Amino acid sequence: MFRPEIKVMDCSIRDGGLINEWHFSDEFVRATYKGLCDAGVDYMEIGYKATKSLFDPKKFGKWRFCDDDDIRRVIDGIEPVTRLSCMVDIGRVEDKDIAAQSQSPFSMIRVACYIKQVDKAIDLCNMIMDKGYETTVNIMAVSTNTEREIDEALNDLSKTNVPVVYVVDSFGNMYSEDITFLVKKYRDALPGKTIGIHTHNNRQLAFANTIQAIIDHADLLDASVFGIGRGPGNCNLELLLTFLQNPKYKVRPILELIQKHYLPLSKEIEWGYIIPYMLTGYLNEHPRVAIAYRDSAERDDYVKFYDKLTTPETEVDLKI
Amino acid sequence: MFRPEIKVMDCSIRDGGLINEWHFSDEFVRATYKGLCDAGVDYMEIGYKATKSLFDPKKFGKWRFCDDDDIRRVIDGIEPVTRLSCMVDIGRVEDKDIAAQSQSPFSMIRVACYIKQVDKAIDLCNMIMDKGYETTVNIMAVSTNTEREIDEALNDLSKTNVPVVYVVDSFGNMYSEDITFLVKKYRDALPGKTIGIHTHNNRQLAFANTIQAIIDHADLLDASVFGIGRGPGNCNLELLLTFLQNPKYKVRPILELIQKHYLPLSKEIEWGYIIPYMLTGYLNEHPRVAIAYRDSAERDDYVKFYDKLTTPETEVDLKI
Repeated sequence: MFRPEIKVMDCSIRDGGLINEWHFSDEFVRATYKGLCDAGVDYMEIGYKATKSLFDPKKFGKWRFCDDDDIRRVIDGIEPVTRLSCMVDIGRVEDKDIAAQSQSPFSMIRVACYIKQVDKAIDLCNMIMDKGYETTVNIMAVSTNTEREIDEALNDLSKTNVPVVYVVDSFGNMYSEDITFLVKKYRDALPGKTIGIHTHNNRQLAFANTIQAIIDHADLLDASVFGIGRGPGNCNLELLLTFLQNPKYKVRPILELIQKHYLPLSKEIEWGYIIPYMLTGYLNEHPRVAIAYRDSAERDDYVKFYDKLTTPETEVDLKI
Repeated sequence: MFRPEIKVMDCSIRDGGLINEWHFSDEFVRATYKGLCDAGVDYMEIGYKATKSLFDPKKFGKWRFCDDDDIRRVIDGIEPVTRLSCMVDIGRVEDKDIAAQSQSPFSMIRVACYIKQVDKAIDLCNMIMDKGYETTVNIMAVSTNTEREIDEALNDLSKTNVPVVYVVDSFGNMYSEDITFLVKKYRDALPGKTIGIHTHNNRQLAFANTIQAIIDHADLLDASVFGIGRGPGNCNLELLLTFLQNPKYKVRPILELIQKHYLPLSKEIEWGYIIPYMLTGYLNEHPRVAIAYRDSAERDDYVKFYDKLTTPETEVDLKI
């Protein structure tokens, strides 16, 4: 599917950091940046910007903060084919944490929000755009929102200069029909804006859903190397590049990244197809219950986890 | 997607046996049968029938042969909700290996063939049907066939009493558009027959492609517990059951099977998302090159494998 407007955003470090609290070595992050540049990937999201009064730098790795100087050092000397992005959450970043774009290694700052925070996200995007950055709004957990809520948020966004709005399947719950429904809804409500897609792989549908979003004219595509990301992870970048028939993308540098860095890491920290996350995806629940369960002694007692999720206190039996 | 015609076929032992030469213990096979019965799965394919002059019983486990007495013993005492199937290959089974259905624990015998063997498959199906079994024809590797070849094979099949014909994505190469194209072609050419779907998970599309086939009116759906099968494996049965909105299916017994039997086995033998198989899927090649590579010392040198597959001896560079 060749379409010149399509751009790919790698989220390996930002989303992968949710597993290891962003404790990636400089060497790992540098190798990832180099591999993405060699592969022709358009953007790399290298972490979050966040206020240090809210997150302890002793506990979190440096990609939780993305100080401009750390970024400059880690990419120093690499031909900068891939533009850099970082993400900010509502209420977790302050004006003073974000320099003018002309003084920063970042081209883009993306805003993640829940649907009830869209007004705050728009405010933050305006500040980000005033400083000279590209921006996006990523409305999380939209599989739990009513159509009325979504329409209202999209109506608010339609009146802004925010150039990109993302369909985000935070819980890994959606089928391709849901993707089609939402991408169409976003496009209809947001003429002239680009639609992005961010999928999770709880049910092994992240790649398939990203393909469906492309067919439905989403043009900014999130993925990660070897699918790294919390729990089931994201759409695998190496799969996505084989689908995109575009000579500017090369899969070989990503294969090299996997064998040298991501495969060894996958033996130390866990991501991929894991039954408790499959079940939270199926049941449209936040993965936090699966995360907690995987940290417990019962981590592989899937039946007990299933019973917990499907047996409400009212004793109504929702088992399938 | 509720449709009363839909039936599910578990291939865990038959396809999983391609990894371990069918050396599953009786206890493992019995637990699988019990779990599938409890889950309401319609069919279980418990292995192949094959002539012992062609396969050495000292080398291959008993599910390579599926002697009726072995089958009876392993399912003895379990309420037989799930009907039993076995598979046969062209030229690897003889009339004497197949008893009359009334004397056999099997309800179905499926015939796997390449497109140029469809005439032989029809002969074999006629013999199988004469003995009283249900049957299917599974045309393998159809992603490598021309449309003319497929049309000719379907025309031959349309003149027979074979009740089910399968779309098989042997190499894990297809996108959902390919599934739609083929299921529609099979349906148009084979009025009154049931269309089956068998997918492989090289590119994490087995579940998505099975969903697409269901939407396109395939009614006999292959899957396996925890996706077990050679290399990337098959559509995961536990995912498929969560998709099928049908109260007759229960996912809980499959979760129990996974935690007690399939998760431990997955630490001894390999299946799942593995880059060399992803690449053979992408390049529409038989997995044999990936199988050999995974048996070599270079098993995780993905770049070298990619270069081998994409650099023909003519020095033409097909790398993406």
